[in-house]
Amino acid sequence: MKYKTYQKSDSHTYILGAFPTMEALFHVPHQLERILIHSTFTDTEKMNQLTALHEIPMEVNDAQIEKLSDKENVYVIGVLKKYENPVGKANHLVLVNPSNTGNLGTIMRTMLGFGMIHLVIIRPSVDIFDPKTIRASMGAIFHLHISFYDTYEQYKKEFPNQYAYPLMLQAKTKLHQLMSIETPYSLVFGNEATGLPDSFLKEGNPLIIQHTAYIDSLNLPIAVAITLYEFAHH
Amino acid sequence: MKYKTYQKSDSHTYILGAFPTMEALFHVPHQLERILIHSTFTDTEKMNQLTALHEIPMEVNDAQIEKLSDKENVYVIGVLKKYENPVGKANHLVLVNPSNTGNLGTIMRTMLGFGMIHLVIIRPSVDIFDPKTIRASMGAIFHLHISFYDTYEQYKKEFPNQYAYPLMLQAKTKLHQLMSIETPYSLVFGNEATGLPDSFLKEGNPLIIQHTAYIDSLNLPIAVAITLYEFAHH
Repeated sequence: MKYKTYQKSDSHTYILGAFPTMEALFHVPHQLERILIHSTFTDTEKMNQLTALHEIPMEVNDAQIEKLSDKENVYVIGVLKKYENPVGKANHLVLVNPSNTGNLGTIMRTMLGFGMIHLVIIRPSVDIFDPKTIRASMGAIFHLHISFYDTYEQYKKEFPNQYAYPLMLQAKTKLHQLMSIETPYSLVFGNEATGLPDSFLKEGNPLIIQHTAYIDSLNLPIAVAITLYEFAHH
Repeated sequence: MKYKTYQKSDSHTYILGAFPTMEALFHVPHQLERILIHSTFTDTEKMNQLTALHEIPMEVNDAQIEKLSDKENVYVIGVLKKYENPVGKANHLVLVNPSNTGNLGTIMRTMLGFGMIHLVIIRPSVDIFDPKTIRASMGAIFHLHISFYDTYEQYKKEFPNQYAYPLMLQAKTKLHQLMSIETPYSLVFGNEATGLPDSFLKEGNPLIIQHTAYIDSLNLPIAVAITLYEFAHH
Protein backbone atom coordinates (compact mmCIF):
# COMPACT_ATOMS: atom_id res chain seq x y z
CA MET A 1 0.00 0.00 0.00
CA LYS A 2 1.38 3.39 -1.00
CA TYR A 3 -0.05 6.63 0.37
CA LYS A 4 0.29 9.85 -1.57
CA THR A 5 0.44 13.47 -0.41
CA TYR A 6 -2.99 14.54 0.85
CA GLN A 7 -5.53 15.97 -1.56
CA LYS A 8 -8.85 17.47 -0.50
CA SER A 9 -10.68 15.10 -2.87
CA ASP A 10 -9.19 11.96 -1.21
CA SER A 11 -11.55 9.67 0.69
CA HIS A 12 -8.94 9.30 3.42
CA THR A 13 -6.73 11.73 5.33
CA TYR A 14 -3.64 11.58 7.54
CA ILE A 15 -3.39 12.16 11.26
CA LEU A 16 0.12 13.41 11.91
CA GLY A 17 1.40 12.51 15.38
CA ALA A 18 0.94 9.94 18.11
CA PHE A 19 -1.31 12.10 20.29
CA PRO A 20 -4.04 12.88 17.74
CA THR A 21 -3.82 9.32 16.40
CA MET A 22 -4.55 8.03 19.93
CA GLU A 23 -7.55 10.37 20.06
CA ALA A 24 -8.84 8.78 16.84
CA LEU A 25 -8.22 5.30 18.28
CA PHE A 26 -10.36 6.21 21.29
CA HIS A 27 -13.17 8.05 19.52
CA VAL A 28 -13.42 6.91 15.88
CA PRO A 29 -11.48 3.61 15.77
CA HIS A 30 -13.55 2.16 12.94
CA GLN A 31 -12.46 5.00 10.67
CA LEU A 32 -8.78 4.10 10.97
CA GLU A 33 -7.65 1.97 8.06
CA ARG A 34 -3.97 1.75 9.02
CA ILE A 35 -1.37 3.14 11.40
CA LEU A 36 2.13 3.93 10.19
CA ILE A 37 4.93 3.91 12.75
CA HIS A 38 8.48 5.21 12.45
CA SER A 39 11.12 2.66 13.46
CA THR A 40 12.45 5.01 16.14
CA PHE A 41 9.03 5.28 17.84
CA THR A 42 9.02 3.14 20.98
CA ASP A 43 6.04 4.21 23.11
CA THR A 44 3.79 1.66 21.42
CA GLU A 45 2.18 -0.30 24.26
CA LYS A 46 -1.17 1.46 24.50
CA MET A 47 -1.32 1.87 20.74
CA ASN A 48 -0.69 -1.87 20.27
CA GLN A 49 -3.55 -2.70 22.63
CA LEU A 50 -6.04 -0.47 20.86
CA THR A 51 -5.02 -1.41 17.34
CA ALA A 52 -5.24 -5.12 18.24
CA LEU A 53 -8.67 -4.60 19.82
CA HIS A 54 -10.00 -2.94 16.67
CA GLU A 55 -7.94 -5.07 14.25
CA ILE A 56 -6.26 -2.05 12.66
CA PRO A 57 -3.10 -2.92 10.70
CA MET A 58 0.11 -1.33 11.96
CA GLU A 59 3.10 -0.90 9.73
CA VAL A 60 6.64 0.32 10.34
CA ASN A 61 7.43 2.45 7.31
CA ASP A 62 9.97 5.25 7.74
CA ALA A 63 9.99 6.32 4.09
CA GLN A 64 6.21 6.65 3.99
CA ILE A 65 6.18 8.70 7.21
CA GLU A 66 8.86 11.05 6.02
CA LYS A 67 7.01 11.55 2.76
CA LEU A 68 3.69 12.38 4.40
CA SER A 69 4.88 14.36 7.39
CA ASP A 70 5.72 17.58 5.55
CA LYS A 71 8.95 18.41 7.44
CA GLU A 72 7.32 18.13 10.88
CA ASN A 73 8.71 15.76 13.49
CA VAL A 74 6.21 12.95 13.20
CA TYR A 75 6.64 9.35 14.36
CA VAL A 76 3.09 8.06 13.97
CA ILE A 77 0.57 8.64 11.20
CA GLY A 78 -3.00 7.39 11.33
CA VAL A 79 -4.66 6.82 7.96
CA LEU A 80 -8.29 7.78 8.46
CA LYS A 81 -11.32 7.20 6.26
CA LYS A 82 -13.29 10.45 6.18
CA TYR A 83 -16.71 10.28 7.81
CA GLU A 84 -19.79 12.33 8.66
CA ASN A 85 -21.05 13.04 12.16
CA PRO A 86 -23.68 15.77 11.86
CA VAL A 87 -24.70 18.22 14.56
CA GLY A 88 -27.83 17.63 16.65
CA LYS A 89 -30.28 19.78 18.58
CA ALA A 90 -27.87 21.47 20.97
CA ASN A 91 -25.86 24.65 21.29
CA HIS A 92 -23.84 25.26 18.12
CA LEU A 93 -20.76 27.11 17.07
CA VAL A 94 -21.26 28.43 13.52
CA LEU A 95 -18.29 29.48 11.42
CA VAL A 96 -19.13 31.37 8.24
CA ASN A 97 -16.42 30.80 5.61
CA PRO A 98 -13.43 29.96 7.82
CA SER A 99 -10.30 30.19 5.67
CA ASN A 100 -7.34 29.04 7.74
CA THR A 101 -6.58 25.41 8.66
CA GLY A 102 -4.52 26.26 11.74
CA ASN A 103 -7.22 28.58 13.09
CA LEU A 104 -9.93 25.98 12.48
CA GLY A 105 -7.95 23.32 14.36
CA THR A 106 -7.25 25.67 17.27
CA ILE A 107 -10.97 26.53 17.42
CA MET A 108 -11.89 22.83 17.51
CA ARG A 109 -9.56 22.25 20.45
CA THR A 110 -10.93 25.27 22.31
CA MET A 111 -14.52 24.13 21.65
CA LEU A 112 -13.77 20.80 23.27
CA GLY A 113 -12.17 22.63 26.18
CA PHE A 114 -15.41 24.49 26.84
CA GLY A 115 -17.77 21.58 26.20
CA MET A 116 -19.07 22.88 22.85
CA ILE A 117 -19.11 19.84 20.55
CA HIS A 118 -21.42 20.89 17.69
CA LEU A 119 -19.77 22.78 14.84
CA VAL A 120 -21.65 24.18 11.85
CA ILE A 121 -19.64 25.42 8.87
CA ILE A 122 -21.08 27.63 6.14
CA ARG A 123 -19.27 27.04 2.84
CA PRO A 124 -16.93 27.97 1.23
CA SER A 125 -14.58 26.78 3.93
CA VAL A 126 -11.18 25.27 4.46
CA ASP A 127 -11.08 21.49 4.61
CA ILE A 128 -11.84 20.11 8.09
CA PHE A 129 -9.93 16.94 7.19
CA ASP A 130 -6.80 18.71 6.01
CA PRO A 131 -3.91 17.16 8.00
CA LYS A 132 -3.02 20.69 9.21
CA THR A 133 -6.51 21.18 10.66
CA ILE A 134 -6.44 17.79 12.40
CA ARG A 135 -2.97 18.43 13.80
CA ALA A 136 -3.84 21.92 15.07
CA SER A 137 -6.95 20.45 16.72
CA MET A 138 -4.72 17.94 18.53
CA GLY A 139 -7.36 15.32 17.79
CA ALA A 140 -10.26 17.38 19.17
CA ILE A 141 -11.93 16.99 15.76
CA PHE A 142 -12.69 13.34 16.62
CA HIS A 143 -14.95 14.44 19.47
CA LEU A 144 -17.00 16.85 17.39
CA HIS A 145 -20.25 16.77 15.45
CA ILE A 146 -19.78 18.80 12.28
CA SER A 147 -22.31 19.83 9.60
CA PHE A 148 -21.94 21.88 6.44
CA TYR A 149 -24.40 24.21 4.73
CA ASP A 150 -24.09 26.26 1.58
CA THR A 151 -25.86 29.24 3.12
CA TYR A 152 -26.81 30.47 6.58
CA GLU A 153 -30.46 30.46 5.47
CA GLN A 154 -30.32 26.72 4.78
CA TYR A 155 -28.88 26.15 8.24
CA LYS A 156 -31.65 28.26 9.84
CA LYS A 157 -34.31 26.32 7.96
CA GLU A 158 -33.01 23.07 9.41
CA PHE A 159 -32.58 24.47 12.94
CA PRO A 160 -35.33 27.10 13.29
CA ASN A 161 -35.27 27.09 17.09
CA GLN A 162 -31.67 28.15 17.58
CA TYR A 163 -31.17 31.61 19.12
CA ALA A 164 -28.36 33.38 17.26
CA TYR A 165 -25.55 35.37 18.87
CA PRO A 166 -23.56 36.76 15.93
CA LEU A 167 -20.20 38.22 16.97
CA MET A 168 -19.78 41.49 15.10
CA LEU A 169 -17.82 44.73 15.47
CA GLN A 170 -21.05 46.61 14.56
CA ALA A 171 -23.00 45.04 17.45
CA LYS A 172 -24.42 47.12 20.31
CA THR A 173 -24.46 44.56 23.13
CA LYS A 174 -21.10 43.93 24.80
CA LEU A 175 -20.37 40.29 25.49
CA HIS A 176 -19.32 40.96 29.07
CA GLN A 177 -22.59 42.78 29.77
CA LEU A 178 -24.88 40.06 28.41
CA MET A 179 -27.48 39.48 31.11
CA SER A 180 -29.14 36.19 30.20
CA ILE A 181 -28.63 33.48 27.63
CA GLU A 182 -31.32 31.93 25.43
CA THR A 183 -30.92 28.25 24.57
CA PRO A 184 -30.34 26.39 22.37
CA TYR A 185 -27.98 29.03 21.04
CA SER A 186 -25.78 29.44 17.99
CA LEU A 187 -22.60 31.48 18.35
CA VAL A 188 -21.91 32.81 14.86
CA PHE A 189 -18.52 34.05 13.64
CA GLY A 190 -17.49 35.42 10.25
CA ASN A 191 -14.45 34.95 8.09
CA GLU A 192 -10.97 35.89 9.41
CA ALA A 193 -10.56 38.84 7.07
CA THR A 194 -14.09 40.12 6.52
CA GLY A 195 -16.17 39.21 9.58
CA LEU A 196 -19.92 38.78 9.22
CA PRO A 197 -21.94 40.83 6.72
CA ASP A 198 -24.27 43.52 8.13
CA SER A 199 -27.29 41.30 7.43
CA PHE A 200 -26.43 39.40 10.64
CA LEU A 201 -27.34 42.49 12.69
CA LYS A 202 -30.93 41.28 12.28
CA GLU A 203 -30.22 37.80 13.67
CA GLY A 204 -30.88 37.18 17.38
CA ASN A 205 -28.66 39.26 19.67
CA PRO A 206 -25.46 40.48 18.00
CA LEU A 207 -22.52 40.78 20.42
CA ILE A 208 -19.21 42.61 20.44
CA ILE A 209 -16.13 41.76 22.49
CA GLN A 210 -15.12 45.22 23.64
CA HIS A 211 -11.49 46.04 22.83
CA THR A 212 -9.38 49.17 22.50
CA ALA A 213 -9.30 51.23 19.31
CA TYR A 214 -5.62 50.33 18.86
CA ILE A 215 -6.46 47.11 17.05
CA ASP A 216 -8.97 46.50 14.24
CA SER A 217 -10.24 43.25 15.70
CA LEU A 218 -9.22 40.27 17.76
CA ASN A 219 -8.11 37.28 15.75
CA LEU A 220 -10.73 34.64 15.09
CA PRO A 221 -9.59 31.79 17.41
CA ILE A 222 -9.24 34.33 20.22
CA ALA A 223 -12.68 35.86 19.68
CA VAL A 224 -14.20 32.36 19.60
CA ALA A 225 -12.34 31.33 22.77
CA ILE A 226 -13.42 34.40 24.75
CA THR A 227 -17.03 33.90 23.68
CA LEU A 228 -17.03 30.19 24.55
CA TYR A 229 -15.47 31.01 27.92
CA GLU A 230 -18.12 33.63 28.66
CA PHE A 231 -21.02 31.37 27.66
CA ALA A 232 -19.59 28.38 29.56
CA HIS A 233 -19.15 30.31 32.79
CA HIS A 234 -22.02 32.80 32.60
CA MET B 1 22.82 49.13 0.89
CA LYS B 2 22.24 45.37 0.97
CA TYR B 3 20.16 43.72 3.64
CA LYS B 4 20.69 40.10 4.55
CA THR B 5 18.32 37.47 5.94
CA TYR B 6 17.48 38.29 9.54
CA GLN B 7 19.71 37.00 12.33
CA LYS B 8 18.88 37.34 16.01
CA SER B 9 22.25 39.02 16.62
CA ASP B 10 21.56 41.79 14.08
CA SER B 11 21.11 45.33 15.39
CA HIS B 12 18.20 45.85 12.98
CA THR B 13 15.16 43.79 12.02
CA TYR B 14 12.57 43.72 9.24
CA ILE B 15 8.91 44.65 9.44
CA LEU B 16 7.17 42.63 6.74
CA GLY B 17 4.07 44.32 5.37
CA ALA B 18 2.58 47.78 4.88
CA PHE B 19 0.27 47.64 7.89
CA PRO B 20 2.87 46.91 10.59
CA THR B 21 5.32 49.29 8.88
CA MET B 22 2.71 52.05 9.20
CA GLU B 23 2.36 51.20 12.88
CA ALA B 24 6.12 51.68 13.27
CA LEU B 25 5.92 54.99 11.38
CA PHE B 26 3.28 56.20 13.83
CA HIS B 27 4.82 54.94 17.06
CA VAL B 28 8.59 54.51 16.66
CA PRO B 29 9.46 56.56 13.55
CA HIS B 30 12.98 57.37 14.74
CA GLN B 31 13.84 53.68 14.78
CA LEU B 32 13.14 53.25 11.07
CA GLU B 33 16.31 53.46 9.04
CA ARG B 34 14.76 52.73 5.63
CA ILE B 35 11.58 51.61 3.95
CA LEU B 36 11.71 49.22 1.03
CA ILE B 37 8.81 49.28 -1.44
CA HIS B 38 7.91 46.81 -4.16
CA SER B 39 7.35 48.45 -7.56
CA THR B 40 3.80 47.05 -7.69
CA PHE B 41 2.82 48.74 -4.40
CA THR B 42 0.72 51.81 -5.10
CA ASP B 43 -0.99 52.81 -1.86
CA THR B 44 1.92 55.08 -0.90
CA GLU B 45 0.34 58.46 -0.11
CA LYS B 46 0.16 58.23 3.67
CA MET B 47 3.49 56.44 3.81
CA ASN B 48 5.12 59.17 1.72
CA GLN B 49 3.83 61.86 4.08
CA LEU B 50 5.17 60.13 7.16
CA THR B 51 8.50 59.13 5.70
CA ALA B 52 9.04 62.71 4.45
CA LEU B 53 8.11 64.11 7.87
CA HIS B 54 10.68 61.92 9.60
CA GLU B 55 13.22 61.99 6.76
CA ILE B 56 13.26 58.22 6.35
CA PRO B 57 14.74 57.03 3.04
CA MET B 58 12.35 55.07 0.82
CA GLU B 59 13.65 52.74 -1.83
CA VAL B 60 11.91 50.72 -4.56
CA ASN B 61 13.77 47.42 -4.55
CA ASP B 62 11.88 44.33 -5.71
CA ALA B 63 14.84 41.95 -5.48
CA GLN B 64 15.56 42.96 -1.90
CA ILE B 65 11.91 42.56 -0.88
CA GLU B 66 11.61 39.15 -2.45
CA LYS B 67 14.78 38.04 -0.70
CA LEU B 68 13.65 39.19 2.75
CA SER B 69 9.98 38.32 2.59
CA ASP B 70 10.33 34.55 3.03
CA LYS B 71 7.68 33.48 0.50
CA GLU B 72 4.97 35.68 2.03
CA ASN B 73 3.15 38.26 -0.08
CA VAL B 74 4.92 41.38 1.06
CA TYR B 75 5.05 44.73 -0.73
CA VAL B 76 6.58 46.91 1.96
CA ILE B 77 9.42 46.19 4.38
CA GLY B 78 10.46 48.54 7.16
CA VAL B 79 14.08 48.26 8.27
CA LEU B 80 14.01 48.95 12.01
CA LYS B 81 16.85 49.63 14.44
CA LYS B 82 16.16 47.55 17.54
CA TYR B 83 15.43 49.56 20.68
CA GLU B 84 14.55 49.27 24.33
CA ASN B 85 11.37 50.53 25.93
CA PRO B 86 11.20 49.03 29.42
CA VAL B 87 8.07 48.44 31.48
CA GLY B 88 7.01 50.87 34.18
CA LYS B 89 4.99 50.71 37.37
CA ALA B 90 1.73 49.42 35.97
CA ASN B 91 -0.11 46.15 35.43
CA HIS B 92 2.16 43.66 33.71
CA LEU B 93 1.83 40.56 31.59
CA VAL B 94 4.70 38.20 32.42
CA LEU B 95 5.65 35.40 30.03
CA VAL B 96 8.05 32.83 31.43
CA ASN B 97 10.11 31.27 28.61
CA PRO B 98 7.79 31.82 25.64
CA SER B 99 9.04 29.65 22.78
CA ASN B 100 6.96 30.41 19.70
CA THR B 101 7.25 33.57 17.58
CA GLY B 102 3.71 33.37 16.18
CA ASN B 103 2.20 32.92 19.65
CA LEU B 104 4.23 35.83 21.03
CA GLY B 105 3.06 38.11 18.24
CA THR B 106 -0.57 37.08 18.69
CA ILE B 107 -0.26 37.74 22.42
CA MET B 108 1.16 41.22 21.76
CA ARG B 109 -1.80 42.05 19.53
CA THR B 110 -4.30 40.76 22.09
CA MET B 111 -2.55 42.72 24.88
CA LEU B 112 -3.01 45.93 22.93
CA GLY B 113 -6.64 44.99 22.32
CA PHE B 114 -7.25 44.84 26.06
CA GLY B 115 -5.14 47.86 27.03
CA MET B 116 -2.29 45.88 28.59
CA ILE B 117 0.89 47.53 27.30
CA HIS B 118 3.60 46.30 29.69
CA LEU B 119 5.19 42.96 28.83
CA VAL B 120 7.82 41.24 30.98
CA ILE B 121 9.68 38.28 29.51
CA ILE B 122 11.69 35.82 31.60
CA ARG B 123 14.54 34.34 29.58
CA PRO B 124 15.20 32.07 27.74
CA SER B 125 12.69 33.33 25.22
CA VAL B 126 12.05 33.61 21.54
CA ASP B 127 13.23 36.82 19.91
CA ILE B 128 10.71 39.67 20.20
CA PHE B 129 12.27 41.29 17.13
CA ASP B 130 12.08 38.21 14.94
CA PRO B 131 10.22 39.32 11.78
CA LYS B 132 7.69 36.50 12.43
CA THR B 133 6.89 37.92 15.88
CA ILE B 134 6.50 41.45 14.52
CA ARG B 135 4.29 40.25 11.67
CA ALA B 136 2.07 38.13 13.94
CA SER B 137 1.73 41.14 16.26
CA MET B 138 0.51 43.22 13.28
CA GLY B 139 2.65 46.04 14.60
CA ALA B 140 1.23 45.89 18.15
CA ILE B 141 4.82 45.42 19.37
CA PHE B 142 5.49 49.12 18.62
CA HIS B 143 2.95 50.17 21.26
CA LEU B 144 4.42 48.01 24.02
CA HIS B 145 6.87 48.43 26.86
CA ILE B 146 8.95 45.27 27.11
CA SER B 147 11.54 44.22 29.71
CA PHE B 148 13.63 41.07 30.06
CA TYR B 149 14.85 39.29 33.18
CA ASP B 150 16.96 36.17 33.59
CA THR B 151 14.85 34.91 36.49
CA TYR B 152 11.45 35.63 38.00
CA GLU B 153 13.19 36.48 41.28
CA GLN B 154 15.12 39.30 39.61
CA TYR B 155 11.87 40.66 38.22
CA LYS B 156 10.22 40.51 41.66
CA LYS B 157 13.16 42.32 43.24
CA GLU B 158 12.75 45.19 40.78
CA PHE B 159 8.93 45.28 41.12
CA PRO B 160 8.25 44.21 44.71
CA ASN B 161 4.76 45.72 44.82
CA GLN B 162 3.21 43.75 42.00
CA TYR B 163 0.48 41.30 43.01
CA ALA B 164 0.97 38.06 41.07
CA TYR B 165 -1.77 36.05 39.38
CA PRO B 166 0.02 32.98 38.00
CA LEU B 167 -2.13 30.98 35.58
CA MET B 168 -1.68 27.30 36.44
CA LEU B 169 -3.55 24.04 35.97
CA GLN B 170 -2.74 23.22 39.62
CA ALA B 171 -4.42 26.42 40.91
CA LYS B 172 -7.48 26.31 43.18
CA THR B 173 -9.14 29.63 42.30
CA LYS B 174 -11.12 29.66 39.07
CA LEU B 175 -10.60 32.75 36.95
CA HIS B 176 -14.33 33.28 36.43
CA GLN B 177 -14.96 33.16 40.19
CA LEU B 178 -12.27 35.70 41.11
CA MET B 179 -14.00 38.21 43.38
CA SER B 180 -11.67 41.21 43.51
CA ILE B 181 -8.47 42.28 41.83
CA GLU B 182 -5.37 43.63 43.56
CA THR B 183 -3.36 46.25 41.68
CA PRO B 184 -0.81 46.72 40.28
CA TYR B 185 -1.01 43.11 39.14
CA SER B 186 1.19 40.75 37.16
CA LEU B 187 -0.52 38.05 35.09
CA VAL B 188 2.06 35.28 34.85
CA PHE B 189 2.05 32.53 32.19
CA GLY B 190 4.44 29.63 31.67
CA ASN B 191 5.98 28.09 28.61
CA GLU B 192 3.73 26.61 25.88
CA ALA B 193 4.74 23.01 26.59
CA THR B 194 5.50 22.96 30.30
CA GLY B 195 3.44 25.71 31.96
CA LEU B 196 4.68 27.26 35.20
CA PRO B 197 6.65 25.24 37.77
CA ASP B 198 4.88 24.35 41.04
CA SER B 199 6.92 27.01 42.87
CA PHE B 200 4.49 29.61 41.46
CA LEU B 201 1.70 28.15 43.63
CA LYS B 202 3.22 30.28 46.40
CA GLU B 203 3.06 33.53 44.41
CA GLY B 204 0.03 35.79 44.91
CA ASN B 205 -3.26 34.19 43.85
CA PRO B 206 -2.81 31.35 41.33
CA LEU B 207 -5.71 31.04 38.88
CA ILE B 208 -7.06 28.34 36.60
CA ILE B 209 -9.25 28.78 33.55
CA GLN B 210 -11.72 25.98 34.07
CA HIS B 211 -12.00 23.68 31.07
CA THR B 212 -13.23 20.15 30.39
CA ALA B 213 -11.07 17.09 31.01
CA TYR B 214 -11.09 16.35 27.26
CA ILE B 215 -8.13 18.64 26.65
CA ASP B 216 -4.84 18.91 28.55
CA SER B 217 -4.77 22.68 28.46
CA LEU B 218 -5.80 25.68 26.41
CA ASN B 219 -3.13 26.97 24.10
CA LEU B 220 -1.07 29.88 25.39
CA PRO B 221 -2.40 32.82 23.30
CA ILE B 222 -5.93 31.69 24.13
CA ALA B 223 -5.29 31.39 27.87
CA VAL B 224 -3.68 34.85 27.83
CA ALA B 225 -6.58 36.33 25.86
CA ILE B 226 -9.26 34.95 28.19
CA THR B 227 -7.37 36.21 31.23
CA LEU B 228 -6.84 39.69 29.76
CA TYR B 229 -10.54 39.82 28.81
CA GLU B 230 -11.60 38.84 32.34
CA PHE B 231 -9.29 41.38 34.03
CA ALA B 232 -10.25 44.15 31.58
CA HIS B 233 -13.98 43.68 32.10
CA HIS B 234 -14.12 42.53 35.76
